[in-house]
Amino acid sequence: VLIFLNGRLVPEHRARVSVFDRGFLYGDGLFETVRVCQGRPFRWAQHLERFQRGAEFLGIRPPFTPGEWLAAARRLIVRNRRPEALLRLTLSRGVGVRGYSPAGADSPTLMLSLHPLPGGPAPKWKLITTSHRLPPATSLARFKTANKLAQILARAEADTAGADEALLRDARGRIAEGTAGNLFWISRDAVCTPPLAAGILPGVTRAVVLEICRDLKIKVRERSPRPGELAAAQGVFLTLSSRGIVEAVALDGRPLRRSPVTRQLRQAHERLLHAETA
Amino acid sequence: VLIFLNGRLVPEHRARVSVFDRGFLYGDGLFETVRVCQGRPFRWAQHLERFQRGAEFLGIRPPFTPGEWLAAARRLIVRNRRPEALLRLTLSRGVGVRGYSPAGADSPTLMLSLHPLPGGPAPKWKLITTSHRLPPATSLARFKTANKLAQILARAEADTAGADEALLRDARGRIAEGTAGNLFWISRDAVCTPPLAAGILPGVTRAVVLEICRDLKIKVRERSPRPGELAAAQGVFLTLSSRGIVEAVALDGRPLRRSPVTRQLRQAHERLLHAETA
Repeated sequence: VLIFLNGRLVPEHRARVSVFDRGFLYGDGLFETVRVCQGRPFRWAQHLERFQRGAEFLGIRPPFTPGEWLAAARRLIVRNRRPEALLRLTLSRGVGVRGYSPAGADSPTLMLSLHPLPGGPAPKWKLITTSHRLPPATSLARFKTANKLAQILARAEADTAGADEALLRDARGRIAEGTAGNLFWISRDAVCTPPLAAGILPGVTRAVVLEICRDLKIKVRERSPRPGELAAAQGVFLTLSSRGIVEAVALDGRPLRRSPVTRQLRQAHERLLHAETA
Repeated sequence: VLIFLNGRLVPEHRARVSVFDRGFLYGDGLFETVRVCQGRPFRWAQHLERFQRGAEFLGIRPPFTPGEWLAAARRLIVRNRRPEALLRLTLSRGVGVRGYSPAGADSPTLMLSLHPLPGGPAPKWKLITTSHRLPPATSLARFKTANKLAQILARAEADTAGADEALLRDARGRIAEGTAGNLFWISRDAVCTPPLAAGILPGVTRAVVLEICRDLKIKVRERSPRPGELAAAQGVFLTLSSRGIVEAVALDGRPLRRSPVTRQLRQAHERLLHAETA
């Protein structure tokens, strides 16, 4: 497998960064995970826009233009012969002086890598709720940063419980999102999802689902679920760039109801994925 | 300069980790910064205890015993001929499968590095208060993790303002700590500092100062400062393992009062540093 690192394609075992890279020292960077279908990254523009606004917010100047990012992605897909894959874009602030000040760290590290798609039939996930909380809605929450310890600890809790994914709470204690995807549920025939103001990640697939609902004239409500609300829902699902729409079949060990709307949205998402990358 | 990386001493330019190291991808790791004086790490036991409890909390099993960590540190100090330095211990979860689950990432990366001591006379720092907030007091706050974006952004704000350090707020909005050190102030002849319950890092130098105050029979109050309280204080200082006690001379552009107690504590800290490492 070839990795794109700082302008060159290198074999995986040679894709290495300095131990003084601020990404490694402090999680000082960001990333995106993009679905590649039929050789093309799906919703590339949306992913790259979030990525670039994040870099700007952190004050990291990527030495690539949007066109150069796309050219690098295409080259990576072609050279690795991986038309169906996940593409990870990674940007860190690179090496600087010791300490938190980013002053003088002017040579960011950029990396693109391809990963196999999770295979098998449409997944059905068991969820748990955790006590792990997102920080109060800060600007940082809008981006996919390399500070993921809360998500890692929550996900480890799910592993321990024999579940597939963990739900994090917002600063007020309401359920906010999964560690790796946005949360949706169906209630009184409306599709519900927490608002961005809850401090959640504005997921690209979340936006796709809201778009599909608009097209299909399905009512949408943005609200944060109260405890018990998910258990009583007609259906629950998560949205991830890596997997699209994933139906949840259990929460905290109790089975969840399953709605035909989840399947309808899932099929619409798959159609869009294939149509846009054709 | 030689770096200790996964059991071997390597030259700095060869001290590299995989781009798939979870430290680089997610900030999935922790570190300690220890003052080395007269060839010996100061308050080694306290730093290593926090480091090891942190690793345990994150579920990272360091392949080193405490004795092996110390032997590695000594070897690094001797081989680099750096009896006066800062020692950084770094531990990350190493390479795993894609995604947040730590399952299968069983080969942590460990790194020890030495850095020059900040030189010059006793520093006098200009501080700013920032709107950056610490997450609500979680267990994560007790450790020096590699998730430092809030600290980096706050410190960048200080850089922009021409200041030396930035103060972060706790989840309630009270001033909590500096990006790289704990906060103290002197008020009505007591030494005051926010309580650990504010979600601050339990600094090793913070504990040294509380110890010195006990020995010198100086009254200590643990409380979170209200806005304006620091501006009215008899003196303000920060505690950092890298620099000991650093006096603050300005806050948000206004000069702070300076107390003889700060100098007294600073001298006591220096005496202890030299006595314990002699």
